[in-house]
Amino acid sequence: VETFSPTFNRITALLSRLPGIGQKTAARLAFFILKSEPKYAHMLADELKQLHQKIRYCSICGMLTEQDPCPVCTSSRRDTHTLCVVENPTDALKIEQTGEYRGLYHILMGSLSPLNRITPDKLRIKELVQRIRDNHVEEVIFATNPTVEGDTTALYITSLLEKEDIRITRLGKGLPTGGDLELADTITLLSAIKNRENLRL
Amino acid sequence: VETFSPTFNRITALLSRLPGIGQKTAARLAFFILKSEPKYAHMLADELKQLHQKIRYCSICGMLTEQDPCPVCTSSRRDTHTLCVVENPTDALKIEQTGEYRGLYHILMGSLSPLNRITPDKLRIKELVQRIRDNHVEEVIFATNPTVEGDTTALYITSLLEKEDIRITRLGKGLPTGGDLELADTITLLSAIKNRENLRL
Repeated sequence: VETFSPTFNRITALLSRLPGIGQKTAARLAFFILKSEPKYAHMLADELKQLHQKIRYCSICGMLTEQDPCPVCTSSRRDTHTLCVVENPTDALKIEQTGEYRGLYHILMGSLSPLNRITPDKLRIKELVQRIRDNHVEEVIFATNPTVEGDTTALYITSLLEKEDIRITRLGKGLPTGGDLELADTITLLSAIKNRENLRL
Repeated sequence: VETFSPTFNRITALLSRLPGIGQKTAARLAFFILKSEPKYAHMLADELKQLHQKIRYCSICGMLTEQDPCPVCTSSRRDTHTLCVVENPTDALKIEQTGEYRGLYHILMGSLSPLNRITPDKLRIKELVQRIRDNHVEEVIFATNPTVEGDTTALYITSLLEKEDIRITRLGKGLPTGGDLELADTITLLSAIKNRENLRL
């Protein structure tokens, strides 16, 4: 079989390593980049080149940052008595985008999963407990994923905090806004019934 | 709102320009790249840098290539009497991957779509007709997409070739292998009935 372009094959192979991107999608993305202005490919290349060099993890909260400690941990406008615990940096970005949350974050870098050998010592749990003890934290909000692993992680850490006199909450479960009742799974529906809201107060 | 990392935001914004990649997916991809070995980001960056410089379009068939004419057009092992007409380079790659087709290709660079102002002069149709006349082509296989635009394009070009004494075919329509009969749309099912195959010959 004749090969049209080794370069195109190489970039397709590299792109297909990305999560959720198969061979077909990778070829489509490569062709899109090729059809776009060369400037786009160059901008993307430049950012990729400096990605690992510029971004590190905040030594306090574990978030992606270009300065350590990160801008959130060092901000004077944040509520330092509230910690939001998430699994990954992208989760914290998502919550930050709501613009509502004014506390600090703590990134666990994953969730407990004994089958995948992710035990408590693999996560930033010890750091979290220490942080709570040292910083007059008043509330810990668990924003781990609404999965077995996420819930287990939240419950496990809660058990470690038994003796701390703080409020411990987790994000409310229920129907996703814009979702379809018919498509909701039973567990979500049970949560939605349990967490039903009063319409008439 | 504090910004954790401008670099992360920039790469997410660039990735979200790709087709089918929204903000959320872009952030997930950027985080995946960050978690991977820096070598991966550098390899991808290097390929992106040289993509436009190395790859051009074959002046004969219109395919992506790093040498002009492309390796397929210049190969002595290909059947030069058969032309497979496709909309895009990625379609030709797909057919080439089957390893079955031994003829040459002709890339139209799209399909007729008057609503999107894609008229015959915007496609490589004139070049196709000329190529057929100059090269003793015996069969033209239309492998345009099985859509209204793809079919229209094939029929339009067929009408232009009225006076040429050549075989003109298009890819068979029917049920996709591995598909689910229940999920097939009516038009596909009609094609499948029309193109039914003899089991007993």
